[in-house]
Amino acid sequence: MPSESAAHAPGTVRPGGRTARTRAAVRDAVLTGLAEHGYPGLTVEYVAERSGVHKTTLYRRWGSVEELLADALDLAGEDTWTPPDTGGLDSDLRALAREVTDTFADASSAAAPSAFIAAAFQSERAAAALHDFYAERFSRCAAVVARAVDRGEAPADTDAAAVVRAVSAPLFFRVFITREPIDTALADQCAAAVAAAVRAGAYSPAP
Amino acid sequence: MPSESAAHAPGTVRPGGRTARTRAAVRDAVLTGLAEHGYPGLTVEYVAERSGVHKTTLYRRWGSVEELLADALDLAGEDTWTPPDTGGLDSDLRALAREVTDTFADASSAAAPSAFIAAAFQSERAAAALHDFYAERFSRCAAVVARAVDRGEAPADTDAAAVVRAVSAPLFFRVFITREPIDTALADQCAAAVAAAVRAGAYSPAP
Repeated sequence: MPSESAAHAPGTVRPGGRTARTRAAVRDAVLTGLAEHGYPGLTVEYVAERSGVHKTTLYRRWGSVEELLADALDLAGEDTWTPPDTGGLDSDLRALAREVTDTFADASSAAAPSAFIAAAFQSERAAAALHDFYAERFSRCAAVVARAVDRGEAPADTDAAAVVRAVSAPLFFRVFITREPIDTALADQCAAAVAAAVRAGAYSPAP
Repeated sequence: MPSESAAHAPGTVRPGGRTARTRAAVRDAVLTGLAEHGYPGLTVEYVAERSGVHKTTLYRRWGSVEELLADALDLAGEDTWTPPDTGGLDSDLRALAREVTDTFADASSAAAPSAFIAAAFQSERAAAALHDFYAERFSRCAAVVARAVDRGEAPADTDAAAVVRAVSAPLFFRVFITREPIDTALADQCAAAVAAAVRAGAYSPAP
């Protein structure tokens, strides 16, 4: 099986091929396992059984549960998600914030991302993958601020990275740190506050 | 040992007495153990050895590592901490944000709170204690907003709870979710953004 040799890091083989299908099946099994058992309960045996990919192959290509997790997150980050484009800064930020509440208000959609966040406390490799995942997500979100600048809704030197993080942060903070409930009204408040701060020039220039 | 009987929940005996001293010694041992080994490595045996309190006493009064952890956090929340009172909203929020960066930029001061946050992912009891700890902290912070209202710096119906969380949230978000560095300049930006949003009325009324 040359396309699955150890010389190929996961994802380096042509998209759509057998390796890509295997990787996606493994990713799905990892997500399901995380959602059902959390990171401490995730095993290579579970992923093998669930994905139909032989344990020997998993060990050869990924080596460990940590690498399976990290690769699932890498693959999740390779999706085609784009930030909202509603025609205005306030409504774009509101839509972004609502994506967070929608994800974490529903137990089934919250399970996998919550498990990734929890795993990052136990695995440096998972923490690094989570960092990269969010860096990529937020880099896509910069388009929201760029469009606002183009429309004259935000100063040209607005710190887009800070703006897009500030919208989500109070929601993640409540879910994962202070352990408080979140809802759509709170999401809207977060978005409105950041939009007001942008207009007031509080995010420009970047520190 | 009547003052240590199982009929007394921790902390119900007169302050300054033997029970209070025992509880503080146990709390210190829990914090040290957390900082050194994290929650997964914290054991009743370790706390007994470190605190000099017999293991039998620990099991009788606390029952488990989970309860030891939760009580340490409860006790940490019974301190005399008050929020900054610098004479202005901007500088109060800046001082609050800088407390977060100061705590988490230094490995030794970050260790215990980071371990509490990590433990909350593994223990419902720890999560509940963490919730209560932050609820109490942020309820004290409401004074910052009340003083700003008195000085005419903020609308009377400003959502103080949201304001004080919004200042810290982007810092915690970077440390514990996106795994990015934080610094004083970022803390100042967070504070300035929230102050600007308060002035613009984005936090009033509460949703």
